[in-house]
Order: sequence, then C-alpha cells, then structure tokens
Amino acid sequence: MTYCVGLLLRDGLVFAADSRTNAGLDHIFTFRKMKIFEKPGERFLVLMTAGNLATSQAVTTMVSERLDEGTEETSLFKATSMFSAARIVGNALREVIEVDGDHVRAESADPSSSFILGGQIAGRPTRLFQIYSAGNFVEATPETPYMQIGETKYGKPILDRVVSYDMPIERGVKAALVSFDSTMRSNLSVGLPLDLVSYRVDSLGGPHHRDIGEDNEYFRALRRDYGAGLLDVFDRLPDPEIG
Amino acid sequence: MTYCVGLLLRDGLVFAADSRTNAGLDHIFTFRKMKIFEKPGERFLVLMTAGNLATSQAVTTMVSERLDEGTEETSLFKATSMFSAARIVGNALREVIEVDGDHVRAESADPSSSFILGGQIAGRPTRLFQIYSAGNFVEATPETPYMQIGETKYGKPILDRVVSYDMPIERGVKAALVSFDSTMRSNLSVGLPLDLVSYRVDSLGGPHHRDIGEDNEYFRALRRDYGAGLLDVFDRLPDPEIG
Repeated sequence: MTYCVGLLLRDGLVFAADSRTNAGLDHIFTFRKMKIFEKPGERFLVLMTAGNLATSQAVTTMVSERLDEGTEETSLFKATSMFSAARIVGNALREVIEVDGDHVRAESADPSSSFILGGQIAGRPTRLFQIYSAGNFVEATPETPYMQIGETKYGKPILDRVVSYDMPIERGVKAALVSFDSTMRSNLSVGLPLDLVSYRVDSLGGPHHRDIGEDNEYFRALRRDYGAGLLDVFDRLPDPEIG
Repeated sequence: MTYCVGLLLRDGLVFAADSRTNAGLDHIFTFRKMKIFEKPGERFLVLMTAGNLATSQAVTTMVSERLDEGTEETSLFKATSMFSAARIVGNALREVIEVDGDHVRAESADPSSSFILGGQIAGRPTRLFQIYSAGNFVEATPETPYMQIGETKYGKPILDRVVSYDMPIERGVKAALVSFDSTMRSNLSVGLPLDLVSYRVDSLGGPHHRDIGEDNEYFRALRRDYGAGLLDVFDRLPDPEIG
C-alpha cells in the first residue's frame, strides 16, 4: 500500500511518500514512489505515484527517458510551465493504460495509477497537481493546499486540522510526518522508510531530499510525543454522564 | 454517507451511528441507522447498518416483522444466543440480496449492506458482531474491541490510540464521539444528529439511548476542546531542521 502527500505553501512545497509495496508477511518489496527531476537554477520537479505498480513504473520510466530527447510537449526538462508538465505525465499515463489496460483488466486487476506532481520552473510560480488515472488533473490552491494519493483517509483528519497555505515549511513537514504517523498506525502496509522533500520558493535546487527510516531520531520523537500528547488531551476531556 | 461504531468493553457496550443519508446540497434525508430490540430483563440488542439504504431497510424491516411470529432461527426475540442473533441478521441479508441483488446491479448500483449487531441475552455474555454483505460475520474480542462500518477510516486512528477493552464505558462513549468528530470534519456527508447507546453488562434494559444534535452541549465542548488540545500538542512538537 502507498501513501503520498504534497503541500502547497506560500513559502514552498512539501512532499512525502512511503516506500512499501506489495506488503505481506513474507513478501515485502521496497520501491521508491518519489522521483525528482531537477536542473539546478532552472527547474525542480517532484513526481509521486500510487496505484498499480507496473503502470506507475512504466509512466515514470517513460517520462524519464524523454527528458533529453523529448520536446516541449513530452519532456519535463523542456516543458515551459508546470501545467504543461502535468499534461506530460497525464499523457504518458494515458499511453500506458491504452497499451496495458485491457490486458490487466482481463486478469481482474486494476491498471489505474495516480500521481502528484509539484515544483517550479524559473520565473514562474510553484504549483502542485494531482493527476488522475484518466490523465486529467486538478491543482492545489491556497484554499485547498494539500493533495493526497493512495491510502489517504487515515492521515486526512490531522491535515484538515493543521495545514494552511500560510504555515512555514518546517511546520508543513511536521504536519506531513504526523499524517504519516496516523496512517502507519492504522494501516501496517504503509511503511518506513519515507522519502521527504521540502522545497523553498525560487531555490530551484539544492539538497532537499531526506530519507526517514526506523532510526530517524526526529521522527521517533515526533511519533512518541504526538501520541502521548494526544492521549493526554483525550484524558483531560471530561467524561460524559451516562444513565 | 454513514458511519457507525460499536465498542465491546469489559463493563458493557457502546454504539454510535450518524443519521445522514444521500447527502447533497439540496437532497439530504435523515434516516435512523440504529435500531434497538429490547425485552427488559431478558435481552437487549442493538443493530446498526451501512451501505445500500434499500437493502438496509429491507433487512431491518424483515427482522422486525419476525420478532413475535418467528422461531428461534428467525426471531431476535427468541434467539437463544447472540451468535444465533447474528446469524438471523445475516440470513435476512442473504434473502434480500438474493431477491434484489441482480436488479440493483443491472442499474450499475451496489446492493450490499453491512451491519453491526451487539447486545446481551440474560445469563449470557455481551457480544458484538460485524455482519458482512455476504451474510457471514466476525466477532469483536478483548484484543480487537471495536467494529466500524461505513465511512470508517477517518475515525480509526483515534480509536487505535485510545480504545481498550478495560476502559470504563464513559471513556468508551468519549472515544466514539471523538472518532465521530474526526469523521465529520473530513467527510461532510457524515452528519448530526448521532444516535448513541451505552449498555452496562447485565442491565438488560433501561434508558440507554441518547440523541446528539447540534445543540448538545457536551458534544460541542468535546469537539472544541479536543480540536484545541490537538492543535496545542501539534504546536508544541519541535519543528524539524530542514536544509
């Protein structure tokens, strides 16, 4: 199972993805669900994916192969806007579903995948998109500043309570990590390590990526303190009177 | 949309259900999703339902009509164990799906429904079951003391953190209400009023039911204080260092 979340903030973007696929007792693969496409000083794009793993990998491979040889319409390195970049991913997804879809459905499996794409091209605003399996997409806005794909529901209540477009990036990272904590507690097939990227507007590069595994001190403390704090809040709420 | 939760505790049972169906901007019906079957001093059963409303209502009507005229195998008033009672509901569900299922599927709709059934028959233990649309069922245990149906995921993380078989009933009620708060914040189609029932082991009757609407002071204070407390916990967590 997969969980990915992206935040659009005034100061930048936050991306987080787990890395567990095909989870089972004796059959756990770890594949990265996040890919960074970067030309320092010119553009910085992050792509995350959930859903059918073969579809996801085919799309990611396809857009990777077209970075240099492609055109403005097919290369994430040549797209002139983030909107065009989202369309490139959506079109690649349509190509894959067109070729593989019926064969996968014939096996009673679901070929669909979805993506979160965010980033910035020099001189243009940061943007964040969610691309559906049909290849169309929606964009995050200051009023709806986050996008989720995969196992989205367990981690949504905390985002609804704390995320706002105006929050500092550090606080956005904290929110994404608490959202992952809730998800991992309720669905054991969403697992560590996490890929975490924070991006500051107009930085267009630099060391953004962080790999968060079992031994990450900050995340361990965050999980422990959040859980204890939440229990404490619950304890202090008055009990109801029942008959 | 529907959300129902049932808790099996050492001291008793807790049941909570919302009442919103077919939610939409100009098309909101309120139907009760909880039904109590009670013979004071002899038995106390609570049935909650989620899923296709026609199926849910047909099953509820069917078991209601058979209370007096039915046999040990078909009447919730004559069943000799809670296990038999769960089988009665499962069998009624199979009858409804058998008759209506193909017609509903022909309209590209889903005829399935699920149920939570809990209660006690005099001299026997309290038990809690979740009945699947196939008519089979699973039972709550001290290790897995809660059951959810409908829109279950938003309200699950808080239950995973706070619910235990040993908690007092008052605390169980509080946990169920906080779980509803999280669900209603993330899915606007789960709405008030809530039906809430708490049952103490061996009481076999009495005034258990509570209707929780917009004007319920306790629930309003709980929502406000829990939200504020959780934000405070989040604020006090240290921010991560990002590059």
